[in-house]
Amino acid sequence: MTLVRQPRLVTLEGGEGAGKSTVLAALRDTLASAGHEVVCTREPGGTPLAEQIRDLLLDPRHEPPAQETELLLMFAARAQHVRETVLPALARGAWVLSDRFTDASYAYQGGARGGDVQFIAELERRVVGIEPGLTLLLDVPVQVGLSRMRGRGDADRIESEREDFFERVRTAYLGRAQAHPERFRLIDASQALEVVAATAVGHLQEHLESAR
Amino acid sequence: MTLVRQPRLVTLEGGEGAGKSTVLAALRDTLASAGHEVVCTREPGGTPLAEQIRDLLLDPRHEPPAQETELLLMFAARAQHVRETVLPALARGAWVLSDRFTDASYAYQGGARGGDVQFIAELERRVVGIEPGLTLLLDVPVQVGLSRMRGRGDADRIESEREDFFERVRTAYLGRAQAHPERFRLIDASQALEVVAATAVGHLQEHLESAR
Repeated sequence: MTLVRQPRLVTLEGGEGAGKSTVLAALRDTLASAGHEVVCTREPGGTPLAEQIRDLLLDPRHEPPAQETELLLMFAARAQHVRETVLPALARGAWVLSDRFTDASYAYQGGARGGDVQFIAELERRVVGIEPGLTLLLDVPVQVGLSRMRGRGDADRIESEREDFFERVRTAYLGRAQAHPERFRLIDASQALEVVAATAVGHLQEHLESAR
Repeated sequence: MTLVRQPRLVTLEGGEGAGKSTVLAALRDTLASAGHEVVCTREPGGTPLAEQIRDLLLDPRHEPPAQETELLLMFAARAQHVRETVLPALARGAWVLSDRFTDASYAYQGGARGGDVQFIAELERRVVGIEPGLTLLLDVPVQVGLSRMRGRGDADRIESEREDFFERVRTAYLGRAQAHPERFRLIDASQALEVVAATAVGHLQEHLESAR
């Protein structure tokens, strides 16, 4: 069982405060201007059931999930997202832009929480089965990202972790990028947001050319 | 990684309408009369978060989970249940009576839905890690169980499956009992409920003797 590369699945990854929302909007506009149908989605979430799982995962008013519970809930939401949203969209020829995907589980449940990466890889093969054609990693020093995030107000359960947690997230993301250079593009997200967005759009255009 | 047998974990398994609630009450009384602390619990469920996952799984008003989503949600709830309810109770010396446990995933997500049993076994080893000391399987012909269940009113999402689904559940449960004779006791639950309960209590008393 190997993962099936999906050229029209583009994912955006990065820690807190990296500017993912702005970049996602710029990517969506680029694809729409080129005449493509675009489905913008996010993880955890992307279907009604997966959004309910997201709420169980992130709302700090719920009983905190054990490490194994968090990992399985993430992959349960992802299994649903892939089957109900991502694959149907790809099948009809649309592009899918996802704010986070499986790489986030390697970074958060793997790198930051110390979950077994072999087990994560097995869950990926068994219940996801696909990987993005392009993954943009918005990399920002943890201090910069956190100060941007804290300007936004209430933090969810995962956003409330301590700084060393986010350092481990960042390290794991950079490791993923290094291990998968064929689909990862690393973007320095400490730059001005318009520069970050323009860089991301540049990578997408290059990918559009090569995917033709 | 092998499963750790927990003598004081007693589980009750069976299809719909097998009389699990009545039997559970009789088992609880038996243990309490012998002076033991007893924790009665159920799956999916058994903690506030796991009960919320149960609701996502069973309430037919929610988006139906894909097969893989259902399997991972079951094990997410179980991971939480084991860590937050079962293991703490066992650690303080209590007995735990659970209305369904991991065997139910082999029967429902494995046998009935056709999920990969190897994967279920891996999830069991990785996120459950324990197995009951005694499992009472209340076996009843599908027609008998369904007619009892339908006398009870509204069915949940899984209870609304067709008859051949429950035949596969029954077959898978009987297969589990055959494969694990050291902890399974098979009870003919088509008998009168008081006979079923007395038989279950008899097996528990024998287990209490041997666990001493």
